[in-house]
Amino acid sequence: MQAAFYQGNQTITIGTCRPIEPGPGEVQLKVSHVGICGTDLHIYHGMMDRRVTFPQIMGHEASGTVAALGEGVTGFAVGAPVTVMPLVPCRNCPACEAGHSHICHNLKFLGIDTPGAFQSYWTVPAYTLHHLPPTLSLEFGAMIEPLAVACHDVRIGQVQAGEYVVVLGGGPIGLLIALVSQHIGARVLVSEINPYRLNLARQLGLDAVDPRQTDLPAYVADQTAGAGADVVFEVTASPVGAEVMTQLPRTRGRIVVVGIFGQPPPVDLFRFFWRELRLFGARVYEHQDFTQAIQLAAAESIPFNQLITDIRPLDQLEASFKQMESGGEVMKILLKV
Amino acid sequence: MQAAFYQGNQTITIGTCRPIEPGPGEVQLKVSHVGICGTDLHIYHGMMDRRVTFPQIMGHEASGTVAALGEGVTGFAVGAPVTVMPLVPCRNCPACEAGHSHICHNLKFLGIDTPGAFQSYWTVPAYTLHHLPPTLSLEFGAMIEPLAVACHDVRIGQVQAGEYVVVLGGGPIGLLIALVSQHIGARVLVSEINPYRLNLARQLGLDAVDPRQTDLPAYVADQTAGAGADVVFEVTASPVGAEVMTQLPRTRGRIVVVGIFGQPPPVDLFRFFWRELRLFGARVYEHQDFTQAIQLAAAESIPFNQLITDIRPLDQLEASFKQMESGGEVMKILLKV
Repeated sequence: MQAAFYQGNQTITIGTCRPIEPGPGEVQLKVSHVGICGTDLHIYHGMMDRRVTFPQIMGHEASGTVAALGEGVTGFAVGAPVTVMPLVPCRNCPACEAGHSHICHNLKFLGIDTPGAFQSYWTVPAYTLHHLPPTLSLEFGAMIEPLAVACHDVRIGQVQAGEYVVVLGGGPIGLLIALVSQHIGARVLVSEINPYRLNLARQLGLDAVDPRQTDLPAYVADQTAGAGADVVFEVTASPVGAEVMTQLPRTRGRIVVVGIFGQPPPVDLFRFFWRELRLFGARVYEHQDFTQAIQLAAAESIPFNQLITDIRPLDQLEASFKQMESGGEVMKILLKV
Repeated sequence: MQAAFYQGNQTITIGTCRPIEPGPGEVQLKVSHVGICGTDLHIYHGMMDRRVTFPQIMGHEASGTVAALGEGVTGFAVGAPVTVMPLVPCRNCPACEAGHSHICHNLKFLGIDTPGAFQSYWTVPAYTLHHLPPTLSLEFGAMIEPLAVACHDVRIGQVQAGEYVVVLGGGPIGLLIALVSQHIGARVLVSEINPYRLNLARQLGLDAVDPRQTDLPAYVADQTAGAGADVVFEVTASPVGAEVMTQLPRTRGRIVVVGIFGQPPPVDLFRFFWRELRLFGARVYEHQDFTQAIQLAAAESIPFNQLITDIRPLDQLEASFKQMESGGEVMKILLKV
């Protein structure tokens, strides 16, 4: 069967490998569609070479159908459409014991710490699976994982109907956060510098501005009668994002840090004191976020078709990385495996 | 009557002035004791010269008795012992409208934006007053304001019995936070570099270490079976405090920023993401914090006598500032007005 291998040194090869038979408690999937995540691009850039094992099969935003069941697996029938919550916690660390197994101290992430979904058949623990509704296309099924990220972030941010929400960064996760917040009934502003993404945000019915052309604190103050935003999502992982995130919230307003910062940026802790701001880190998702994402998808509440830039064969992975790093006209690319 | 005047340029003069008659809704106090706050020292150092009006009468940690009542004031009898919550909100800004009048956008702070308590008679709005229990000495009554800060911080931090709490900085506010947390039933560690304060913390029954001699993250990990602290209070306002504060909490642990940072320090936002940490800014207090502080004081739950380094006449204000800035053997100094 076919697989895409990251060989290090910004090199992807397409090759063959043997399907892994599912062991006890495991399920083998026939992979259908897999989204390309910013984390995959990060790996391709060599930023996680110390964590991955060469050759690494990446990919964790997957849909597929059940191909084979390992010993003791119940609740899944061969042929059933599913998606994967790609987290393998240790069940034994203080985080797991405290009920935070999604951020387990020894977490294994499928597609980073183990082989991922950029292959024809993928064997995963059965507990990572979520059923997809039969009415949902498998293309859209590959969007559940990033949507679950957004559901988690919005839940951590406690977004309520009628609140004013600012999303800094209009990439796939940023726009999904904006759309989930909008669905809840919040007023949403997206801040983004890429013209293609700005335009797409507006096509999705979101208010969107370029912070290089619009004074963001003044704009938010104007939109909120001087109060400030109820919730700000920082999804840029940039020093300028870390700077502006504290300038926008109202007293006791919330900031959710979604972006993955490579270096500690300066953060205006005085502003946290002065306005009693609150900041919440948010990472991946919990099962309830997958459940919510699947419900939103089943109800057609999220316009996935507008977010999917293209669907391509597996051998277009490297070309897609090149397009993504160009910062051009791209939102979410899916690979048909 | 006598008053201490800040004249700018690190100069305090002791002079005389006329008592202000209480207007409608105001109360004139005969000031008894006033604590010297770090903020007063900050003003003395010229850091707030653009905010104060020369000559400035500082002081906001006051106890006294009611001397005269303005028109329409009810609920207070002449001679009654009281303390002051020194906040004057505008009642008209988005923060006030949202119920956060203690951090009003146009907040006036008595003793900074208006004349303070370092004078024999002090006229304040009646709504700032809280009755002191007749059994509480007026010396201890002057400790209610800083204790209310600590009650607010601990409430914002949601400290629970059995939790592990780290307080970075063992000055008056840090030790009061530690003592309130200990009273709730938390296990408390104080991190402090001043040997006098370290020793005092230990005399108060608190665990206390010098972070230059003890590896704080390793120590906290050891004390919590590898989990990390439930709550960390940052009370140093130092870059090193901002650095270590993210290294100590457990997954979903809480950080409360109490220290007033002059410059935005680098903050490890990756760690917020990775462990889903939460950060809460905390500023001054609300009426319920004063109520709780007075209850704790009435129940003799806080050993004020160990925290009060000395009680001195008003003309010792400048000498006390000099002692405080030396970083020597001083915790809380009260002035007998």
